[in-house]
Amino acid sequence: MSKINKDLEKKFGSKKIKFDSETLIEYGQDWYKGIEPDPQAIFFPETAKDIQEIIYFAKKKGLKLLPSGGRTGLSGGATAVCKEIVVSMKNLNEINWIKGSHRLKCQAGVITETAKSMAKEKSRILPIDFSSTSSSMIGGNVATNAAGAKFIGYGSTKNHVRNMTVILPNGEITPLGKVAEKDASGPDLMELFIGSEGVFGFILDVTFETYPEPKFSESICLNADSLDDLYKIIQEPSDIISAIEFLDLNSQLLLSNEAPSKYEVLIELNSDSEDKIEYFLRDVVEKVSDVNLLNSRQTKLFWEKRELLPVKLSEMGAVKFDFCVDKLSTEKFMNEVEMNISKAKIFNFGHLGDGNIHLNIIFEEQNDEQVSVVYEILKSFGGSPSAEHGIGKRKKGIWNTFPQYKQKLKLLETLKKSIDPDEIIAPKVFFDN
Amino acid sequence: MSKINKDLEKKFGSKKIKFDSETLIEYGQDWYKGIEPDPQAIFFPETAKDIQEIIYFAKKKGLKLLPSGGRTGLSGGATAVCKEIVVSMKNLNEINWIKGSHRLKCQAGVITETAKSMAKEKSRILPIDFSSTSSSMIGGNVATNAAGAKFIGYGSTKNHVRNMTVILPNGEITPLGKVAEKDASGPDLMELFIGSEGVFGFILDVTFETYPEPKFSESICLNADSLDDLYKIIQEPSDIISAIEFLDLNSQLLLSNEAPSKYEVLIELNSDSEDKIEYFLRDVVEKVSDVNLLNSRQTKLFWEKRELLPVKLSEMGAVKFDFCVDKLSTEKFMNEVEMNISKAKIFNFGHLGDGNIHLNIIFEEQNDEQVSVVYEILKSFGGSPSAEHGIGKRKKGIWNTFPQYKQKLKLLETLKKSIDPDEIIAPKVFFDN
Repeated sequence: MSKINKDLEKKFGSKKIKFDSETLIEYGQDWYKGIEPDPQAIFFPETAKDIQEIIYFAKKKGLKLLPSGGRTGLSGGATAVCKEIVVSMKNLNEINWIKGSHRLKCQAGVITETAKSMAKEKSRILPIDFSSTSSSMIGGNVATNAAGAKFIGYGSTKNHVRNMTVILPNGEITPLGKVAEKDASGPDLMELFIGSEGVFGFILDVTFETYPEPKFSESICLNADSLDDLYKIIQEPSDIISAIEFLDLNSQLLLSNEAPSKYEVLIELNSDSEDKIEYFLRDVVEKVSDVNLLNSRQTKLFWEKRELLPVKLSEMGAVKFDFCVDKLSTEKFMNEVEMNISKAKIFNFGHLGDGNIHLNIIFEEQNDEQVSVVYEILKSFGGSPSAEHGIGKRKKGIWNTFPQYKQKLKLLETLKKSIDPDEIIAPKVFFDN
Repeated sequence: MSKINKDLEKKFGSKKIKFDSETLIEYGQDWYKGIEPDPQAIFFPETAKDIQEIIYFAKKKGLKLLPSGGRTGLSGGATAVCKEIVVSMKNLNEINWIKGSHRLKCQAGVITETAKSMAKEKSRILPIDFSSTSSSMIGGNVATNAAGAKFIGYGSTKNHVRNMTVILPNGEITPLGKVAEKDASGPDLMELFIGSEGVFGFILDVTFETYPEPKFSESICLNADSLDDLYKIIQEPSDIISAIEFLDLNSQLLLSNEAPSKYEVLIELNSDSEDKIEYFLRDVVEKVSDVNLLNSRQTKLFWEKRELLPVKLSEMGAVKFDFCVDKLSTEKFMNEVEMNISKAKIFNFGHLGDGNIHLNIIFEEQNDEQVSVVYEILKSFGGSPSAEHGIGKRKKGIWNTFPQYKQKLKLLETLKKSIDPDEIIAPKVFFDN
């Protein structure tokens, strides 16, 4: 055992700090497997003080730390690359209602699904929805500002965060967020940590707003050969739309023998008013021709198909992109990619209402040049290379070539240097240094 | 004319830079008159380049700059206190719709009312509502994150900002905000500038979301001797409530010979669904006894009274507080203040639905000790000393005594030092140095 590891074990005890290869492999990386993990050790703090202690230790010994949650990220943000001590938040998993409110206070290590279930027990919803809710953790959700199929109706994680406690790289425990409902005392610095991917410190706990469950739900399915009609609905979405998902022809045919049209689109409606849903449906029938109300079994089937798709495509070795373009330009964007990529099979699906396309390409042979072409097309559309999954260590080299982000990146680097001058926490994230 | 002023005039010309006493007085301060203004000069840039030039000039000569908008602030944020060159944004007042969207791009010097009217012309609303909309400017609104009577329904300015261009203290023009609708690429650094009161740089332009006009509106008036019943409505406000305003007994009697009860409360309802309003009204009648539907004349009269109140109280020399406490503790807070303040007349009114009380006190003789007592009570309620009007130079000495903000202030100072290491822009705001 190295001198550092001996010191770590002496200080924190063998329950909290691990060096065995099994733990190193399991906790050294997230779901993105394109980066070889290289952790020094895995630390399992049980209190805020444990985190402060590891910060002081790291500072003294010149070590690096990497916050880690459910490791469901897809950008390598939680993959150790330079002998970081991975700090798993999984034992910091207290969850409580704030008395006299509809707010749920979760420590970083609470599983997303646990928080959602706790809300449901009180007939409330925490509208954070993505396929990894059964293993992703609250701290990681906030740190990537995770969003999913319900973005169009409820926004991203950011929209539900009310308060937060963070531990800064200097070890200071810092409560952030608004003190009162209406609080015009300086900028809301909590915002810095939403989407921060850990670079500004540890998220210790997060307080979420919850919402009443909608009384009525319906889902409709549209089949169309062009998205023109749909854009009439998407342009100014009704407040009762909670999801608009789509599968293109290749995606449909991957899961089924037949596809009635080029695009299969599901629109999910939620409201307290049956009339509002009724009115919406009447309006849609006027705008779009081929539309069907789904029963609950059909709805469930659609979502199962939708969830299965990325898994299948992963197995088939697809190169996955997580893009967002202007929602009214999605079809134009997809056509542009198709026209410029050859010797490949292209799959498009995802969150049409937000312009968030999960583009998957199976190349005949892996082709970096063609990948670059895809990103150049995205740039020309003024889009984001990461709609949902963050930048991490995977996309930083791409991100910094986007002219739209050039100035933001410079400012982000200035802020990082001021909050974490020794770059102790989450090194090698965002910046290509 | 001093050497500095001669250099300024030589560089920028007498149209853009002024030193005459009339201009110095007019542009040297905001609506808060408790601080003696002391500007070096007033600068009227016409382009972003002008702002860059004044930054480089200030850096070279060791001068300070102070961004200034409509000067309707009430915290002395735009009052020059140490020979700053006041930079009035009034000539940067372009306003345009973003093509193919419902978004309005406003330069910092656009008058709030102009932006609201432009939205109205397209049957849209920009729900920023406060009494100074006819002279306040967009840059200042965003820099104080101004809110008003419609906070409960629409949030503060922050909720409507989609993008922003800022000029940093190093002169760099920096576009911020999300590149695409769904953009998980790092934290949204635009948030730093919302409520920044200018300390991080100049807000050059802001892009706002606008919303469809609601189809139906009603206002109801409630008279009550206790707020208990009302709390049932406030606890989880319906999404059709756009304002809940109240006047206490003293406030009512200042404007009228009679007051039917201790509290007069107006609830404004807005919805696309007449049924929803109808349902709400039926529900209110069950919860609260003395409730009346107002006709449009009565509604107008209430708002006129409400607007007149702060003006009258100013004339009478009231000490004004802009507090927010937990919305369900407003009555308890008001009682606590009344019990602990003597030889004074107390007036409470404001935005009950948000817990935002405009407490006004007319002391028999100005009494700093009693003012401190009020702030101590606020602290014990965990409230904010500035719900709407910002910290500026006026409240920084109070703000830094609030334990709730201690850590935030430290982090804010770290960020200020990193973005503006020479403290060129908006010195003496926030920090009591």
